Amino acid sequence: MPHKDPHLRALILAGGSGQRFWPLSRELSPKQLLTMFGTESLIAQAVHRILPFVQGGESISIVTNERLLDELRNDLTANADVELHAVRYIQEPVARNTAPAIALAAAIFEAEDPDAVMVVLPSDHVLEDGERWSDCVEAAIHAAHDGYLVTIGISPTRPETGYGYIRAGEPLPRHAVGTALPHAAAEFVEKPELEVAKAFVAGGQHFWNAGIFVMRASRVLEELDAAGGDEAWIADTARWVAGLPQSARTGGEAFERFSALEAISIDKAVMERSDRVAVIPARLVWNDVGSLLALEDIAPVDASGNVRVGRGVDVDSRDTVVYSTDRLVATLGVEDLIVVDTADATLVLPKERAQDVRHVVDALKEAGSVEVIESRTSLRPWGSWTVLAKGDGFQVKSVDVKPGQRLSLQRHARRSEHWVVVEGTALVTKDGEQFELAAQESVFLPIGCVHRLENPGPGPLKIVEVAVGEYLGEDDIERLEDDWRREL
Amino acid sequence: MPHKDPHLRALILAGGSGQRFWPLSRELSPKQLLTMFGTESLIAQAVHRILPFVQGGESISIVTNERLLDELRNDLTANADVELHAVRYIQEPVARNTAPAIALAAAIFEAEDPDAVMVVLPSDHVLEDGERWSDCVEAAIHAAHDGYLVTIGISPTRPETGYGYIRAGEPLPRHAVGTALPHAAAEFVEKPELEVAKAFVAGGQHFWNAGIFVMRASRVLEELDAAGGDEAWIADTARWVAGLPQSARTGGEAFERFSALEAISIDKAVMERSDRVAVIPARLVWNDVGSLLALEDIAPVDASGNVRVGRGVDVDSRDTVVYSTDRLVATLGVEDLIVVDTADATLVLPKERAQDVRHVVDALKEAGSVEVIESRTSLRPWGSWTVLAKGDGFQVKSVDVKPGQRLSLQRHARRSEHWVVVEGTALVTKDGEQFELAAQESVFLPIGCVHRLENPGPGPLKIVEVAVGEYLGEDDIERLEDDWRREL
Repeated sequence: MPHKDPHLRALILAGGSGQRFWPLSRELSPKQLLTMFGTESLIAQAVHRILPFVQGGESISIVTNERLLDELRNDLTANADVELHAVRYIQEPVARNTAPAIALAAAIFEAEDPDAVMVVLPSDHVLEDGERWSDCVEAAIHAAHDGYLVTIGISPTRPETGYGYIRAGEPLPRHAVGTALPHAAAEFVEKPELEVAKAFVAGGQHFWNAGIFVMRASRVLEELDAAGGDEAWIADTARWVAGLPQSARTGGEAFERFSALEAISIDKAVMERSDRVAVIPARLVWNDVGSLLALEDIAPVDASGNVRVGRGVDVDSRDTVVYSTDRLVATLGVEDLIVVDTADATLVLPKERAQDVRHVVDALKEAGSVEVIESRTSLRPWGSWTVLAKGDGFQVKSVDVKPGQRLSLQRHARRSEHWVVVEGTALVTKDGEQFELAAQESVFLPIGCVHRLENPGPGPLKIVEVAVGEYLGEDDIERLEDDWRREL
Repeated sequence: MPHKDPHLRALILAGGSGQRFWPLSRELSPKQLLTMFGTESLIAQAVHRILPFVQGGESISIVTNERLLDELRNDLTANADVELHAVRYIQEPVARNTAPAIALAAAIFEAEDPDAVMVVLPSDHVLEDGERWSDCVEAAIHAAHDGYLVTIGISPTRPETGYGYIRAGEPLPRHAVGTALPHAAAEFVEKPELEVAKAFVAGGQHFWNAGIFVMRASRVLEELDAAGGDEAWIADTARWVAGLPQSARTGGEAFERFSALEAISIDKAVMERSDRVAVIPARLVWNDVGSLLALEDIAPVDASGNVRVGRGVDVDSRDTVVYSTDRLVATLGVEDLIVVDTADATLVLPKERAQDVRHVVDALKEAGSVEVIESRTSLRPWGSWTVLAKGDGFQVKSVDVKPGQRLSLQRHARRSEHWVVVEGTALVTKDGEQFELAAQESVFLPIGCVHRLENPGPGPLKIVEVAVGEYLGEDDIERLEDDWRREL
């Protein structure tokens, strides 16, 4: 069992939009919510990665933007682990890269506990758990208490030219824990040439900067102060926003002051400037899930080099990745291709263009395609729904309600709904009446009727909803009562 | 107006499975039912192509196999043109290539009218209509009455090595009509080498064999008789089967005798042997829709050489064909690719592999994929249905019923159904009761209930059906009464 440090706070950076993973990620279900890299979403993995080291879920904060707040919360509360329900959210007034966001969190943490040590973690990476990780975190906390700004450096496995590298200098054996030996960080090198990267891999002194930082909250602000100019202004603003009541931290003056800040990364603003940076070299399996090429690692490779998830065949195809969420996808005689197929969209590209998927997203956005914004499935605090079909004047959804949960008491002005129970028992409220429906039973909810769906449990509840009307948008909803206060 | 010849019979060959057009074609909705090459299916186009020259729809026969009979009939009766409802069907006892099928039709036609002239047409080609076509058919009929076996030869537009060519010899000006001048056919050349094909195109004396033949029914049988051996046996068997009552023509001895016939094409068995073959050179737009490359011609080409049907974008892609029936498909940086996307399956291949799509179909068949057999939409004599979603224990369909039509009176042993009217008015029978449902209204049909859906008209009727049960196969249906006698 790792040591639980009462001063430790975790900060998970979750404001990213993950365009590069379209069509698997969408604006409203970005990369951190992807579930194919394990049994739960990447952000839930990130929370679980640091949970053993903090006192409880409430010591973990997730920094994100207003748009994603509900989506992230719905994902984490869908998880059975109650500690995930306890995590806190810090809403960036506006996205200004990582330095302002981390500074804001540092100011909040420092105000709560002057000796606070913060672990900064990306929300959308794959990282190996286990003893080596545990040693790294404990050594990092140790060195951070001693005033170091600590990074965890991943042992490179290939001469990647798209990453940043950190060169390890003198060892700091005083802070060693188990397999983890911190070193003074001697140099940061961003995106080296291929030959240089090859030398780094061969030399064994350079490590990938994985964006994992451990440091006293006060040290982050001191380093910004010491840098002066725009950086000092970031620290001042962060302290000022942290001093406001929580409800005032995103709008008005907080928004204005935050908007005026330099958009700069914590790497540039602090790490590359400070002379008290440590790196802990770590031989951990790590993947930044930076492009669709990450799909190559989630299924076995066949004899022709193909990787496939989902139904279909690859005839005479080589070194191709097919990822299909539910439909049949066949390839014939293709090579070095990626095919990603979801319920509502398909993308085909050569592997070598995996870095350019955002160009497709930009083009689709310009064309007004809703498929870049949302997916067919939407998580809700009470469960989830999936659009099965949209037609002229009708829409069919499947709706899953978790045991003991219920949707808001609501009414629609322009559509009627039919609910057919497919699995479980539904407790239905319809214009003041309450009654139960078993599997195969159904109810009609005419336009304007006040209704609510509840799963009295103990098992799952699945219904099929057929909505009919001339307007079927999600915004045609009036919430009269809601367990999550969404009527406000 | 073309001359309507009272002796003319048309025979449309429609037994093909069209594997090479998967996933747009399926075993139960083969190439001849594709609708993207015009405003109606290819087979409806074939019927309309010859209809002006015959007395009426009943002079047109479609030869096919048992499996496709209903599918073809449902397609043609879905057409508003009543002449298409009048066409006759000849069921091959068993598929033995074109010579036995054409001989059987010839024997039937000859028995009806000793002076019958038959036009043989493929059911799955694109062919330009208009005056030149009309001239060709009239000239061909003229020459056929005079004893010629006439083919229509398409002026080649490229040195295609996959086709058969016919060399035109002496002109036969006696049979000329308008722009159409028959020539004696001097030679048949099957699949020439590229250099030879180039010389054919340059020389102007060779024409593509498009599988369109016009000849006296009696002459086909005489030529087979004259060839002797296996060919004579084809004629004898055809006459014998034609002499049976219609109900006895497919099973029992007819099946056995037909099965024993040589599987040979009419080209080999008759045309290439006879010394009285004429060819009418025709400068007509023709496409045998032989592979997915035919999709290149159905939409405009963009500046990068891409052809696209359906929503999506092509970013940095070149010379690529994207055909999507309803979903969004995006490509990025691909070249010379074909992407075909349907409601339930996607295929990706390089253009140069378009001839090999059947390998994919074979592999999918071996894997037991239902997507090679049927599509999500199924035509019925009363209208059509589309599977919108299948889930564990439920299935959602949209059902369209034509005005004045009704489904069978039926019952299911293992599923209940809910019908929600989306558009129009439904007349519902439920356990003896009859009532109407307007849009937004619904009815529940429990397991075992006797029910029927009817569209009293005058407008279209669309319902969404939610079926719930542990078994949802189409074969769980007991038809008690049916306007198409499908209960038998």
